[in-house]
Amino acid sequence: MTSPYARITELNTHIGQVVRVRGWVTHLRSSGKVAFVVMRDGSGTLQCVLVKVSLPAETWEQYGGLSHETTIEVAGEVRSDKRAPGGVELAVTSLTITGPSPADYPIQPKEHGIDFLLDRRHLWLRSGRQRAIARVRHEIEQAIRDFFHKRDFTLVDTPILTAAIGERSGLFSTEYFDEGTAYLAQTGQLYGEAAAAALGRIYCFGPTFRAEKSKTRRHLSEFWMVEPEVAFNDSDDNMRLQEEFVSYIVQRCLERRRDELIELERDLSKLETVVAPFPRIDYSDAVRLLERKGSGVKWGDDLGAEDETLLVEGHDRPVFVFNYPKEAKAFYMKENPDDPRTVLCNDCLAPEGFGEIIGGSQREDDHDRLLRRIEEEKLPIDAYGWYLDLRKYGTFVHSGFGLGLERTVAWICGLPHVREAIAFPRMMHRLRP
Amino acid sequence: MTSPYARITELNTHIGQVVRVRGWVTHLRSSGKVAFVVMRDGSGTLQCVLVKVSLPAETWEQYGGLSHETTIEVAGEVRSDKRAPGGVELAVTSLTITGPSPADYPIQPKEHGIDFLLDRRHLWLRSGRQRAIARVRHEIEQAIRDFFHKRDFTLVDTPILTAAIGERSGLFSTEYFDEGTAYLAQTGQLYGEAAAAALGRIYCFGPTFRAEKSKTRRHLSEFWMVEPEVAFNDSDDNMRLQEEFVSYIVQRCLERRRDELIELERDLSKLETVVAPFPRIDYSDAVRLLERKGSGVKWGDDLGAEDETLLVEGHDRPVFVFNYPKEAKAFYMKENPDDPRTVLCNDCLAPEGFGEIIGGSQREDDHDRLLRRIEEEKLPIDAYGWYLDLRKYGTFVHSGFGLGLERTVAWICGLPHVREAIAFPRMMHRLRP
Repeated sequence: MTSPYARITELNTHIGQVVRVRGWVTHLRSSGKVAFVVMRDGSGTLQCVLVKVSLPAETWEQYGGLSHETTIEVAGEVRSDKRAPGGVELAVTSLTITGPSPADYPIQPKEHGIDFLLDRRHLWLRSGRQRAIARVRHEIEQAIRDFFHKRDFTLVDTPILTAAIGERSGLFSTEYFDEGTAYLAQTGQLYGEAAAAALGRIYCFGPTFRAEKSKTRRHLSEFWMVEPEVAFNDSDDNMRLQEEFVSYIVQRCLERRRDELIELERDLSKLETVVAPFPRIDYSDAVRLLERKGSGVKWGDDLGAEDETLLVEGHDRPVFVFNYPKEAKAFYMKENPDDPRTVLCNDCLAPEGFGEIIGGSQREDDHDRLLRRIEEEKLPIDAYGWYLDLRKYGTFVHSGFGLGLERTVAWICGLPHVREAIAFPRMMHRLRP
Repeated sequence: MTSPYARITELNTHIGQVVRVRGWVTHLRSSGKVAFVVMRDGSGTLQCVLVKVSLPAETWEQYGGLSHETTIEVAGEVRSDKRAPGGVELAVTSLTITGPSPADYPIQPKEHGIDFLLDRRHLWLRSGRQRAIARVRHEIEQAIRDFFHKRDFTLVDTPILTAAIGERSGLFSTEYFDEGTAYLAQTGQLYGEAAAAALGRIYCFGPTFRAEKSKTRRHLSEFWMVEPEVAFNDSDDNMRLQEEFVSYIVQRCLERRRDELIELERDLSKLETVVAPFPRIDYSDAVRLLERKGSGVKWGDDLGAEDETLLVEGHDRPVFVFNYPKEAKAFYMKENPDDPRTVLCNDCLAPEGFGEIIGGSQREDDHDRLLRRIEEEKLPIDAYGWYLDLRKYGTFVHSGFGLGLERTVAWICGLPHVREAIAFPRMMHRLRP
């Protein structure tokens, strides 16, 4: 009778039992009499112990055929070992090589250049650090889904292929049958607004695209964005939802992905303080503060990355900057009745200089004002007819925001560049693998 | 002091209290002395009662300004009423129009043609039937996420913009900076296989694209697909995972979206029987069965929609057809060692003639055999170098599948066409709104 297969993460429930484990070799060490094979199976890491005198000669000889990334199947007894990762080790009685790995495996335990690694992203993903990032990213995404599901939001998948939408520059385009040019969506928001009139509270969460020739550490040409839209929320409600949302995500990662964050050498104390409410700074106050700090920013400008870093100095949690000048922001934002030079909007800036992770706003719900803004921006009116309809038939106060997933992953994991925050990053000079 | 706002779905916890409710008018009826306003707020539907003699004249007069889709705010006492939807009604003491709706609201309670409705999809979404579909779709998506999250799968978002991938015909393309042409992904599978070697159990779930000039009721040019990939699963494990997965989704909708399915007039008895295990038919047996049933199919053909309908006849749950001829399927499927004319794969056919909802396979894990298949199919070898690497460095038995979301929504909701299964469908002649 053969022993059952077990995943490494489950082995602590099999102590004293004989099991079989499948996975890949990550480290090898041998004294000539005792050999240690560290393997991973995607669920965890396991130390396997081979003792020469207790093994058939052919099993011991298998050890010589192992290298980094060899796929193996081992059988043996699970033993408790406080010092081992996961608290167990395997006393091996049989070892089979099921997938050899030649000695030229390109990613070695030494420093590699970033382009070398990104060219081999399909293999680089196997490294401990990249696996930890992937698991934190997964947790953040599931936390996002759960947050909205529990609050009775309906997920609405907005289209990627669109006839005309949102911001106009930096669009990828494709021929769409006989319908002319289609553009890859930069946001699902406008569609989300239509859905909010049907379903009240909605969110979309999918890939978005920017064909911008930017090479900063915070830009990808393809990135994921989550965009809730809520009927009857004003700008203030919108910021409350954002701080509750961001706090939930961070606290859940601390609760469920502590091991991964420790592996990433993240300073957990910088995350533990991320609890609502977040400080709020009016844009005009922010400009005054920045002037005092020596920034060259002038009232009317959008804020740059360096300004954002200056603004979060001394704060232990994200900071809202709200009510920017109209010129600095998108056409669909609602004019501020108390200061018509500005719009009812906010950015949410992550602490530690990780920069903007959210942009949000109350939407212009007045048909004629919105029409005027579309004309001022010289947007194609006929493409926005359906969007104007939302203000014609039962207009409603509503607000929403977009949180950039990779920037959030980079912040929570403490990554200097967003390119590691997604499995296969797409940037100006990178379309492969 | 003003009364608190409440969502309609929460009103049964406010019986006897005065609350304010915001939403849109769906139905109006008046005797001249008593008026009924039915409104929706995205969470539910509420009957509001206005009694002329108990109201200030100006409140009663507001009634005359209401029409379909007018946005209103009402205040009043929540009263228990067994006959009303949600078990409550509102005894209105004040009513304010916050967003008028002109009488030309295009979607009226009568039959409209499908193109008329799809041209007004941004408004059509507000109808009861479309809201019910949206909620079932949401539940299916959350069920998918929860199914995999509970089983320790890691979500991996695979890229949309790719240099070269999967099936070759029917690709949308776009210029990608100076890197040449990028294609919109038809599948995330190949990337998922790389991630499975890192993380063991993974899934991707995002939009996929087909530029095919097809006008059937089962095709969209943009649709969502969920694709798990599992290290060390063979084809048999793969089918077990599929039947467990599909059963979970269906049973969860029955449990949590029964009201919506009833609103859609779905025959629930046809869903209640969807429980694993599912019947399995070998492809060759399926062809013999189809021949007996009068189909013109020949061994070697892929199965068409009519064949699929014939095969599920008499079954009360989905049916697997497995191990198709190599020529009918994709290059990456593993050759069947027991019959090298075939590959280790399966389709999963929904009952009631809803057709294929899943395609799955064990992947070819032998480097040289896979290389030969890539050459036979005349695929660009250099674009698949990274994919071949997965067979070079620690190859492993692995399997996965893709479930089409809109087909699954159409089946569970009982929709004759997939175009209603997504908020803003994209088809050959439809890119707007």
